[in-house]
Amino acid sequence: MIYNLAIIGGGPGGHVAAERAAHKGLNVILFEQAALGGTCLNEGCIPTKALLHSAKLYHYAKIATKYGIEVEQVNFKYDKIISRKNKIIRKLNAGIRSAMTKHNVQVINGRAVIEQANDNQVTISCNDQIYAAENVIVATGSVTSIPPIPGVDTTPYITSKEALEIKDIPQSIAIIGGGVIGMEFASLFNTFGTKVTVIEMAPEILPPFDSEIATMLREHYKKEGVTFHLQAKVTSIAPGEVNFETAEGKSSVETQQILLCVGRKPAISNIGLENVNIERFRNGIAVDKFMRTSHPRIYAIGDVTAFSMLAHTASREGEVAVNNILGINDEMSYKAIPSVVYTYPEVAGVGKTEQELIANNVEYNVYKLPMTFSGRFVVENEGGNGLCKILTNNENRVIGAHLIGNPCSEIITTITAAIEANWTLDQFKKVVFPHPSVSEIIKEAINA
Amino acid sequence: MIYNLAIIGGGPGGHVAAERAAHKGLNVILFEQAALGGTCLNEGCIPTKALLHSAKLYHYAKIATKYGIEVEQVNFKYDKIISRKNKIIRKLNAGIRSAMTKHNVQVINGRAVIEQANDNQVTISCNDQIYAAENVIVATGSVTSIPPIPGVDTTPYITSKEALEIKDIPQSIAIIGGGVIGMEFASLFNTFGTKVTVIEMAPEILPPFDSEIATMLREHYKKEGVTFHLQAKVTSIAPGEVNFETAEGKSSVETQQILLCVGRKPAISNIGLENVNIERFRNGIAVDKFMRTSHPRIYAIGDVTAFSMLAHTASREGEVAVNNILGINDEMSYKAIPSVVYTYPEVAGVGKTEQELIANNVEYNVYKLPMTFSGRFVVENEGGNGLCKILTNNENRVIGAHLIGNPCSEIITTITAAIEANWTLDQFKKVVFPHPSVSEIIKEAINA
Repeated sequence: MIYNLAIIGGGPGGHVAAERAAHKGLNVILFEQAALGGTCLNEGCIPTKALLHSAKLYHYAKIATKYGIEVEQVNFKYDKIISRKNKIIRKLNAGIRSAMTKHNVQVINGRAVIEQANDNQVTISCNDQIYAAENVIVATGSVTSIPPIPGVDTTPYITSKEALEIKDIPQSIAIIGGGVIGMEFASLFNTFGTKVTVIEMAPEILPPFDSEIATMLREHYKKEGVTFHLQAKVTSIAPGEVNFETAEGKSSVETQQILLCVGRKPAISNIGLENVNIERFRNGIAVDKFMRTSHPRIYAIGDVTAFSMLAHTASREGEVAVNNILGINDEMSYKAIPSVVYTYPEVAGVGKTEQELIANNVEYNVYKLPMTFSGRFVVENEGGNGLCKILTNNENRVIGAHLIGNPCSEIITTITAAIEANWTLDQFKKVVFPHPSVSEIIKEAINA
Repeated sequence: MIYNLAIIGGGPGGHVAAERAAHKGLNVILFEQAALGGTCLNEGCIPTKALLHSAKLYHYAKIATKYGIEVEQVNFKYDKIISRKNKIIRKLNAGIRSAMTKHNVQVINGRAVIEQANDNQVTISCNDQIYAAENVIVATGSVTSIPPIPGVDTTPYITSKEALEIKDIPQSIAIIGGGVIGMEFASLFNTFGTKVTVIEMAPEILPPFDSEIATMLREHYKKEGVTFHLQAKVTSIAPGEVNFETAEGKSSVETQQILLCVGRKPAISNIGLENVNIERFRNGIAVDKFMRTSHPRIYAIGDVTAFSMLAHTASREGEVAVNNILGINDEMSYKAIPSVVYTYPEVAGVGKTEQELIANNVEYNVYKLPMTFSGRFVVENEGGNGLCKILTNNENRVIGAHLIGNPCSEIITTITAAIEANWTLDQFKKVVFPHPSVSEIIKEAINA
């Protein structure tokens, strides 16, 4: 038989695409070489959030006295925290599996390779079987990048994957890379008492984020005891030692653990791309706004496109690909893709940043206010602060927003919707926010 | 001198209107007989949320073991909880005062009475002085209703106001009225160990909310030990005793405290309405969609209009009134006003309910999903559940949403924006929600 759609990779791109396509009547086969849910569920977004939530409760118990709650002694059992995390992964994995079954998606556990493609169909091999499909979506995701640092071959180190599995909290950890993943682990280990050092090559942590907000986050963690080295190039690693150079000269950190968080790269090896002459973009696969590759029957979505490497981007790109396969007009838009850092406090951003607008010589307006202008934020964050910054263009349409302060991961979507709707501030001002809520800070900021 | 605008009442209607008007250049005077911030800040929304946040931390510490966090002994110091609540009120009160000063709003502490009004101006007396203004906004709010229950004059009872000031948690409390205020206090006292009984006249608690979700909340608190009597009419109260009648006959609850939460009524006494022959609506002031009363120079906003008695409605109505005074076209819309119950779990609703649509014979579609379809919800709510329900009309435009599960108070605004934008589901589906977030449940529900 010929499937309507074959999907290679069962992460947040692939399994969502499978579900949407099957929901709309397509006959779908999904290949996954490891576990359904991909990096995101099994060794990324979800497990980090499970660990970070335990860390948050530990933190809450330690500061409860500020709120009139007296807690005698607080300890954590890291093995229990890890096993709860694993239980959640199993539960959510079962959820995806049951969604696939419910939608009659055939799931094949194995490594799929595109063998050939013509105008009518694509042939895929997996576990010594051959499958044919009218269309293929490549959603193979990404793998951790290991930079060619001298000593990396002879020094024990961990990546985010192993960091989720360690049995005990280390006494000290040096995190190479102060991006989203690095900062989330810095938050986790710092909360549980590890001496954390973050070494970042850029002038500020979280390079693509709003730099004012990134600075606020760094200053927060500096107060919490994290050491930062910025504009620092790691020159070598050795057991228990990270050596780096800054403008001030050479320096070194002694550490129990070394955690490499320098980024991820598209997973394009051994999936048969060379058999079908697919065009490349950066170190991934080139696609158009319909998520179609240079071959009209092959689509690519998610991290493998080397563009917006986020789980929710992959899911939306999957929907766009499926709609186009179905003949429904849909184009991928990147103007309102939120990004979140699940530190404590959380950081969230969507749309344009000031540094981007300045670099491109685009005029813009800034509306900003400290989070303490929200009564609920004051209630829930004794002594805390944060920032809400909203950017508009010269027509006063909302084009970006950048926040620090909980729960900005949940309230960023309202601004995402405003950007998607192409609202002016006057249109946005008509939205009624519940009182009291932290989300009201958005209304206060645009009226300030 | 003649002010451009006089505002009577400094609650969330009045002080926001004062700030917006002054920001746009009007010369504004604001009369407040008690404290700036009104009922909402001083004896309503904010103090309850402060107490409920302490209760949440107490709850978190007690259940932390589920998340691998071991807490030896948890106690609460209610006097500290109350004094923190009072400190927050003082801080936010100072914030409003400084906003008034910054915008050159003259604030008069005293009871204002409208003395007369003609085509050009309105005269107001306060503290034996006479003031004149081109326009007036009445924002006097509401007061607690005390129902004529036999025994109410001779029995000690408290209302929400006094419930915020009690020095010790009672051993038992009978709450008359299972609306929003009643349920928030039920949540608070139940968490701190009080034996709580809720007596509600309607067939379900939270009468205007989605009834399926209200039932879920009631069942949750039933499991937590709260006793509910529905369709129960209180026939009398006596010291330590509430007597009521249901279809099964007469019954009685013995209780240490009696808390009356049967609603609020517009504060229209002794403000001079009779001097200017203002038309009435229900037990409040009638207004048109521009928030103008029957006198063209007098506006009314907030609870005093006896319509949507919510702080954020009042603020938005204030903006509409100010815009119309300024000659800017703006109309009040009630189609997307969110309502929140800050219990644990939270409940939030916006737009139409199923019961409303059924009663009006309107066709609609329901998209609903348990909250556990959000990975982040699973991470943060061990063993918990909830519901997200989204309603569309026959054009598949979003017209309502009803949720139970944290933090729905913060994510309801995204659906509020979708209703305000008059989006179809297909338009709404293009919004990218961050992963993982609880807000993603909205996307999952509309795709289910």
